[in-house]
Amino acid sequence: MTELSRRRAALQHMLRQQKWGGFLIVQHVDCYYLCGSMQAGFLFIPAQGEAVFYVRRSVARAIQESDCAVLPLSSMRDLGRQLYRDFPKLFNSEAEPIIATTFDVLPVQLYEKLRTTVGASWTDGSKLMKELRMIKTEIEVERIRKAAHAVDRTLKQVLPQLQEGWSEVRLLAALEFELRQYGHLGLMRMRGFNQELVTGMLGSGAEMTEPGSFDGPTGGKGLHASFPQSASFSPIRRNEPILLDIGCTIEGYVIDQTRTAVLGKLKDHLARAYETARSILYDIEGMLKPGMCSEELYVEALKSAEKAGLKQYFMGYGADQVKFLGHGIGLEVDEWPVLAKGFKMDLRPGMVIAIEPKFTFPGEGVVGIENSYLITDDGFEKLTVTPEEIWEL
Amino acid sequence: MTELSRRRAALQHMLRQQKWGGFLIVQHVDCYYLCGSMQAGFLFIPAQGEAVFYVRRSVARAIQESDCAVLPLSSMRDLGRQLYRDFPKLFNSEAEPIIATTFDVLPVQLYEKLRTTVGASWTDGSKLMKELRMIKTEIEVERIRKAAHAVDRTLKQVLPQLQEGWSEVRLLAALEFELRQYGHLGLMRMRGFNQELVTGMLGSGAEMTEPGSFDGPTGGKGLHASFPQSASFSPIRRNEPILLDIGCTIEGYVIDQTRTAVLGKLKDHLARAYETARSILYDIEGMLKPGMCSEELYVEALKSAEKAGLKQYFMGYGADQVKFLGHGIGLEVDEWPVLAKGFKMDLRPGMVIAIEPKFTFPGEGVVGIENSYLITDDGFEKLTVTPEEIWEL
Repeated sequence: MTELSRRRAALQHMLRQQKWGGFLIVQHVDCYYLCGSMQAGFLFIPAQGEAVFYVRRSVARAIQESDCAVLPLSSMRDLGRQLYRDFPKLFNSEAEPIIATTFDVLPVQLYEKLRTTVGASWTDGSKLMKELRMIKTEIEVERIRKAAHAVDRTLKQVLPQLQEGWSEVRLLAALEFELRQYGHLGLMRMRGFNQELVTGMLGSGAEMTEPGSFDGPTGGKGLHASFPQSASFSPIRRNEPILLDIGCTIEGYVIDQTRTAVLGKLKDHLARAYETARSILYDIEGMLKPGMCSEELYVEALKSAEKAGLKQYFMGYGADQVKFLGHGIGLEVDEWPVLAKGFKMDLRPGMVIAIEPKFTFPGEGVVGIENSYLITDDGFEKLTVTPEEIWEL
Repeated sequence: MTELSRRRAALQHMLRQQKWGGFLIVQHVDCYYLCGSMQAGFLFIPAQGEAVFYVRRSVARAIQESDCAVLPLSSMRDLGRQLYRDFPKLFNSEAEPIIATTFDVLPVQLYEKLRTTVGASWTDGSKLMKELRMIKTEIEVERIRKAAHAVDRTLKQVLPQLQEGWSEVRLLAALEFELRQYGHLGLMRMRGFNQELVTGMLGSGAEMTEPGSFDGPTGGKGLHASFPQSASFSPIRRNEPILLDIGCTIEGYVIDQTRTAVLGKLKDHLARAYETARSILYDIEGMLKPGMCSEELYVEALKSAEKAGLKQYFMGYGADQVKFLGHGIGLEVDEWPVLAKGFKMDLRPGMVIAIEPKFTFPGEGVVGIENSYLITDDGFEKLTVTPEEIWEL
């Protein structure tokens, strides 16, 4: 059995447990995960039997990329007819079959077209998809390791060149120039509606403390109100913290990590806050093993921040503080589990999690650290390879 | 009346024509267009009266950016209660009010939450939103002009440095490095589900002829099956066409343009095809004025390609050929109108359209040209400023 067929078999097992008849994969990333191709179309995975990839375009390329049967789909209207023809037992039973799809990403308009063409009782399979993709295989982890090395090499190449007066975006552009040549796909995919990420978040001094809409602890001034996050045109100034929440996407997989740098030296209280973030991260590392509850990690980190007298600066400031410590990563940046208030899930081997304790000091800057970890049978493997000291330049 | 309030007034006029009670703006780009901010939340625009922006985060930043009343939204569950409180006449009438939103982008899961919290009869306002955003104001056109100049300067800076043996992605990275410093936001937004674009499409020789899922005439080999479009790691070879379908996003607005370059000299039949594309573009320019049907432009271009004996290479090849010549641009790359078979809409002053005749020669490469145009009261203004010859290096 190959990697891709094992993934589909795992989904089929879940479908049978739910007593659902099949899963219609509509999102390009899910499609890539389950059949090796993200050409435009619909991948149908029945609870029993072989999957079929119905492709609008490009059929030729889908045949090259995918290990599934590929059939051309001339129009959306034809999808129902084709499913009925290829899966007669399922779609021709007395009761309408229950078919899952991902309501978390499927637009209403496309859903209504699906309902018109495919006679089925539709159900939301988003949770099931997130649970499936949450557990990574060795092939997936290896790609995340590659991405971690690409970011590490890039930081080591570019940071020594940083000059006082460079704008934040000048530094980001220099990092992207290197990352691209390592194979960074150009963006870090997010599943969340309205969420966007290019190469992570970069910002310095007060600019980085600007809050934003992004579902995370950092925002950044950004270049414009039409992209209100990450790097701006502001110059990087001496002795101010530079937050490098920089990742990349290699062969589909993201790494997410954060380091703090400075041209000169950080003020004492900021350097101390950085060391607190680092020691919180090490404390959390000690808890990383199967069976630990995801929410508990956030709660512990918050307690440590409080003990250090830094609770009010932890993970944002004031109304923009978030009750959050980290998140799963994989093909997308916002995968499961979430280390956050209200999200209770036991850690399991194969999860890959970015953990990012940070402190926001209004008017001064954001300091913090973030590593990504694989949960193993008896603990964790750190996937991030970049040195963990403050990067003094 | 300011620019933003004029946009909202235009939407309100459309709402009253439809006899709808209001529009709930859910997508971040629409939100930015109508209130100046894309912080996370929901902008409600009643058919009569003042709009309110309900913001999850960041409230502080939404207040800075938006010209509308900003109210904090503690949770999705509260949205109904808040609308009822702020618009009692609308939500307290005997019949449920008809509220529009954008079904083309709204995920089903979020829609179901909306239906639970807001008592209304929901209707699809996607078409209306696309029609509204289709007609650009001078402020919008000026930003597209800025973007056009950024791409032009970038090409002139970078192309003379190109060396034989550079990979496609090396060239793309060099272009992005410059574009970023002009303020390119890092991606070109697309509204279409599963559609992604970073800095356009770049590719050379046979690599560029690989078809893809992208809704357009070009694909490209790409770096990996997990991003199967645009630049690859393949080296750029002498005398092979380099397609530079490169744009950028400045202050939210995209420019989309294509030029063809070559290290050395193109083979005669490819150079002739390029000149055919150019002359098709000039013929189409002669038709650009209010009242002309969008589909007609595609039909005319196809006729010219046929007359030149190049029909089979026009806008893709074989099964991957598209019946398409161009598209509206603005805050997103895939705006209205579409110049395509089956899309009939009269041109109107204020539309901005990218027109992109291209020829795909399997195994050899793609050649073509693309300019963006503003439709004026009596014709057009060309917004693209880059020279239109084959770029011989």
